[in-house]
Amino acid sequence: MNTILIGIAGGSGSGKTTLADSLVSFFGENEVSILRHDCYYRRHDELTYEERTHLNYDHPDAFDTELLCRHIKELKAGRRIEMPVYDYTAHNRSDRTTVVLPNPVIILEGIMIFVEPSLLELMDFRIFVDTDADERILRRIIRDVNERGRSLESVIRQYRQTVKPMHDQFVEPSKRKADIIIPEGAKNDAAVQVILELIRSRLRKETAT
Amino acid sequence: MNTILIGIAGGSGSGKTTLADSLVSFFGENEVSILRHDCYYRRHDELTYEERTHLNYDHPDAFDTELLCRHIKELKAGRRIEMPVYDYTAHNRSDRTTVVLPNPVIILEGIMIFVEPSLLELMDFRIFVDTDADERILRRIIRDVNERGRSLESVIRQYRQTVKPMHDQFVEPSKRKADIIIPEGAKNDAAVQVILELIRSRLRKETAT
Repeated sequence: MNTILIGIAGGSGSGKTTLADSLVSFFGENEVSILRHDCYYRRHDELTYEERTHLNYDHPDAFDTELLCRHIKELKAGRRIEMPVYDYTAHNRSDRTTVVLPNPVIILEGIMIFVEPSLLELMDFRIFVDTDADERILRRIIRDVNERGRSLESVIRQYRQTVKPMHDQFVEPSKRKADIIIPEGAKNDAAVQVILELIRSRLRKETAT
Repeated sequence: MNTILIGIAGGSGSGKTTLADSLVSFFGENEVSILRHDCYYRRHDELTYEERTHLNYDHPDAFDTELLCRHIKELKAGRRIEMPVYDYTAHNRSDRTTVVLPNPVIILEGIMIFVEPSLLELMDFRIFVDTDADERILRRIIRDVNERGRSLESVIRQYRQTVKPMHDQFVEPSKRKADIIIPEGAKNDAAVQVILELIRSRLRKETAT
């Protein structure tokens, strides 16, 4: 099988996860698989809970990208993998996993995926969802305050201390690695249509062989 | 026929014309037609040659966009049109025309096409080719000095006096109207592939009906 890996990157709150989920929803579980960089936050059993809460989760080194690369190569070789499940309440990798099937199309989504050369070279098509910083922080506030019960002050503090500096240092420059940039994400029906056509053409080739 | 109009915009020297020509080259003359906003520079028979040389050709009002919109509607209604031929040596529209066929896919390329609401609403898919300003002026210098025999000084003067101010005022903000943004243009094989798939899917639907 000739698997294609489509990378979808973009800042926190850009809409990249919504876009990735929206794309996957058009296909069957034997057509398109999804991998999330967020699931590959490093395991830190050697640290206490308190120590783990002080780690910088907005830096590329927070991710176990080596494991993700191995998993992508396994999928491209036609073998299923077990994607880690991250436990946000424990700030650590859980013992559970999610089975990901070796489908002809794999979507990889994550904030930092265009930062890592080892990941970049595995991607066949790279999409960056580009959303204004003010809109991104508003979405993050709504999500973290309303849906995750965090205080507005803590969301703003984390944004200023790590999210924004890491975005400016790593995410924004990685936009240059994109094949296409989508302003705004899943609201953008025309852009979704064009990516759907890309995936469908890949699936047609798979059926034909 | 259900024609789709694909708009390709981008600054001077961005590579939009190369991208548009590259896309058209994959298809037959009964599949994809191309329209160029540049061909619709206004006729100015009422001015002398000297007066015409002093017009600002980098402003949206330099174009006969009403005529272009009428032509697009004609094509969408299944009727061929005669696209004007602009005479750059006379700084005026010539009496010649180019026949453009009412194909299922029409590509419209031009610097200012996302600036005009009347044009924008006729487009089914909008691509902006985004290239750094330094690379764009270098390409413009190479083209105008080496290929068109202009002096380096005159190219720089025009760039500073009208090209750059008009770009910053009109072209750069119009990027927000794009469905997808392509960093760099025709060098970008992956982006070309995805647009080709969009066009092919449209042509398949046309064949099926």
